[in-house]
Amino acid sequence: MLARARQTFQPGAPMNADLQATLSASKKSWLASANEATCDFPIQNLPFGIFSDTRNSARRVGVAIGDVIVDLAALQAAGQLTLPEGSGDVFAQPVLNPFIALGRETWRSVRIALSTLLDANCALLRDAPALRARVLVPQADATLHLPLDIPGYTDFYSSKEHATNVGTMFRDPKNALLPNWLEIPIGYNGRASSVVVSGTPVRRPMGQLKLPDNERPIFGACRKLDIELETGFVVGRGNALGEPISCAEAEDHIFGMVLLNDWSARDFQQWEYVPLGPFNAKTFATTISPWIVTLDALEPFRVAQPQQEPEPLAYLRHEGQHGFDIALEVQLRPGGAPQATTIARTNFKHMYWTMAQQLAHHTVSGCNTRVGDLMGSGTISGPTPDSLGSLLELTWNGARPLELASGGTRTFIEDGDELTLAGWCQGDGYRVGFGTCVGTILPARS
Amino acid sequence: MLARARQTFQPGAPMNADLQATLSASKKSWLASANEATCDFPIQNLPFGIFSDTRNSARRVGVAIGDVIVDLAALQAAGQLTLPEGSGDVFAQPVLNPFIALGRETWRSVRIALSTLLDANCALLRDAPALRARVLVPQADATLHLPLDIPGYTDFYSSKEHATNVGTMFRDPKNALLPNWLEIPIGYNGRASSVVVSGTPVRRPMGQLKLPDNERPIFGACRKLDIELETGFVVGRGNALGEPISCAEAEDHIFGMVLLNDWSARDFQQWEYVPLGPFNAKTFATTISPWIVTLDALEPFRVAQPQQEPEPLAYLRHEGQHGFDIALEVQLRPGGAPQATTIARTNFKHMYWTMAQQLAHHTVSGCNTRVGDLMGSGTISGPTPDSLGSLLELTWNGARPLELASGGTRTFIEDGDELTLAGWCQGDGYRVGFGTCVGTILPARS
Repeated sequence: MLARARQTFQPGAPMNADLQATLSASKKSWLASANEATCDFPIQNLPFGIFSDTRNSARRVGVAIGDVIVDLAALQAAGQLTLPEGSGDVFAQPVLNPFIALGRETWRSVRIALSTLLDANCALLRDAPALRARVLVPQADATLHLPLDIPGYTDFYSSKEHATNVGTMFRDPKNALLPNWLEIPIGYNGRASSVVVSGTPVRRPMGQLKLPDNERPIFGACRKLDIELETGFVVGRGNALGEPISCAEAEDHIFGMVLLNDWSARDFQQWEYVPLGPFNAKTFATTISPWIVTLDALEPFRVAQPQQEPEPLAYLRHEGQHGFDIALEVQLRPGGAPQATTIARTNFKHMYWTMAQQLAHHTVSGCNTRVGDLMGSGTISGPTPDSLGSLLELTWNGARPLELASGGTRTFIEDGDELTLAGWCQGDGYRVGFGTCVGTILPARS
Repeated sequence: MLARARQTFQPGAPMNADLQATLSASKKSWLASANEATCDFPIQNLPFGIFSDTRNSARRVGVAIGDVIVDLAALQAAGQLTLPEGSGDVFAQPVLNPFIALGRETWRSVRIALSTLLDANCALLRDAPALRARVLVPQADATLHLPLDIPGYTDFYSSKEHATNVGTMFRDPKNALLPNWLEIPIGYNGRASSVVVSGTPVRRPMGQLKLPDNERPIFGACRKLDIELETGFVVGRGNALGEPISCAEAEDHIFGMVLLNDWSARDFQQWEYVPLGPFNAKTFATTISPWIVTLDALEPFRVAQPQQEPEPLAYLRHEGQHGFDIALEVQLRPGGAPQATTIARTNFKHMYWTMAQQLAHHTVSGCNTRVGDLMGSGTISGPTPDSLGSLLELTWNGARPLELASGGTRTFIEDGDELTLAGWCQGDGYRVGFGTCVGTILPARS
């Protein structure tokens, strides 16, 4: 098991008392399922998503608590949730973008209102069974959808351990990190169209691969299909073209975080990536978890980022703590097997470059961002052999197969394998979780 | 001047008589301005765009002819243009996507209807001054807007001459083309948010650059600001995730083409691009021309693509001719100078990989595309020293300054410089033009 660091409460910016109250470790809900120590969705979390259910097929905004979803559209219709005048019908929309576009004060006030309504001491919903039946939907009856219209998807490469491992394998072990890596939060534009929600099956891609003994590439199914264990952050406030976001302001532009699996065809990647970067190796699918955990909910789990040496250029400097202590795990379950194997355990706190630095770098050229933009962290690898965020690293490009608990071994992903990412912040007696981010591999089209 | 190849009329697919009639070289309009030999918008063209004007600030769909714009929303309101039932209010929209989403048969029938209405022999609009006043807007009174909501922007690298020049300059003149180049239409995901319409000023970006004598990079304004002369095609019909578009079907998925200037910060690019490709060097702005020339209008200018050796893998093969004879020019005018210098003259027909091959490769992994996706060709360079599509190549990375007609020289772009791309297909006594794609450089933010 991962060692779980003790949390010190050091918020990034002064918080008002109402927000602080939503984060109190002693806070309980009248929903018993929310108070279990291993529940991902305690009253301290309140992540936002888009769902439909067996009774109502319309996609709408919900918040997860315990084993249910609070239907915000229904809650608003019942007069129990008020938005600023002119906000429009944002909770009855099939994506979160219109709600997010209302701005940080609104996200925060909705979260505070829900925290009050769901508190063990608040009778309003607790003691109103008819109202409860209208606004609470069992998660078991719900389908979760891609929560965002994603205008742009950018993926970074911000784990020093990951970049070092890749450099050691494919370039020069003595100079594993490229010269620009310690200066730039390296990133590239990803393909937004193929971002899918957890649970969507992923078809093994076809493409070009170059076998060592052949002069020319062949066309075929990917033979080195891999995961990349990542998180992603969601832009909550964009910036105009030509107007960069400073490192100090950057977190104010972030709505929240998700788990992200950047599926990768390693054989395609190795052949195609020079000189313009990965393309078909990554564009066939990227899976994200359905619940967006707000940055507000993550405040108690803020930790210092790793020491940065050399000190970054001025535009990449920020005061205070900008890392987050998020435990992360990957499980692999072969098709039909009863048992999954935990193949990696790591933590977001190892990330060298912070989300604030990523966003400041992304926009320093003048590039604009928009509400709903998704920014992947890059593969999150830690310092130990079991804390690596890809099979490429875990099996050292296939040289060291992993033993599976259900029998057999793995170098890369096989058809039918189910890959599950999980993540949570461990509080005192509760955890703020991300749920899971799951994908099962279908055989390639023949 | 460029030699203008004689056109042979060899359409890609059998055309119906109505479509063929719209392309006849002898066709004239009752609008005199459309019949001038150097007008970009004769009756054979009929490109689509989004405009507003001094009398009506609403953005709406228009078609360019001669020196006016046909207001399709007004034409429809006047009962002179009918769409299939259930098409909705697609001409009164601020982007072309809803119209394009109606499908190829609709684009084609609208173009055929306009071709009839604007024909010299058709009295309907010609002899109805009140109606003409309602539906025709002088281009001089109009503002042209970004015509699309662009869900995804991909940029290719498909000129063999360009890739060879870059490889010669920065890698190895003896092995200038990387091994994958002749097998893959190399491309990368670009940044869709910063695609702007012609006429939008472009601010010189700030970023990291590495000077040769310094150990560490500095942060500063780009010193090697460049253009890339490209065209782009617009996806008119998308594909579902996991369902590739074959090379044979690919042109059916293309709505039309634009001119595209892929502004590039060469110093940022050289420092940042390893190993994930260009990022801030390209994300600050990409300019496109406002009029989308349909693939139908380009049919008469279809030519054979260059011989491909080795023969591409099967998924990249197509029968017939898939190049287009599009003359292209770049002009540079220093701020305040009365005179522009034509710094490059080239032709789209030199492109090694075709648009069909680009789209087939993009989707072969299962990647989905969407209506409005923009796909850049990559810099279009030809075989002669003046047919190069970037200052990087024209000045050989600054080593051979260009003489300007207005006096002075240029290695890379200076503040105040106005860069104009132009393109047209030369017919017999007329030309099907793209208009221009213009950007003026503002000084960097200090």
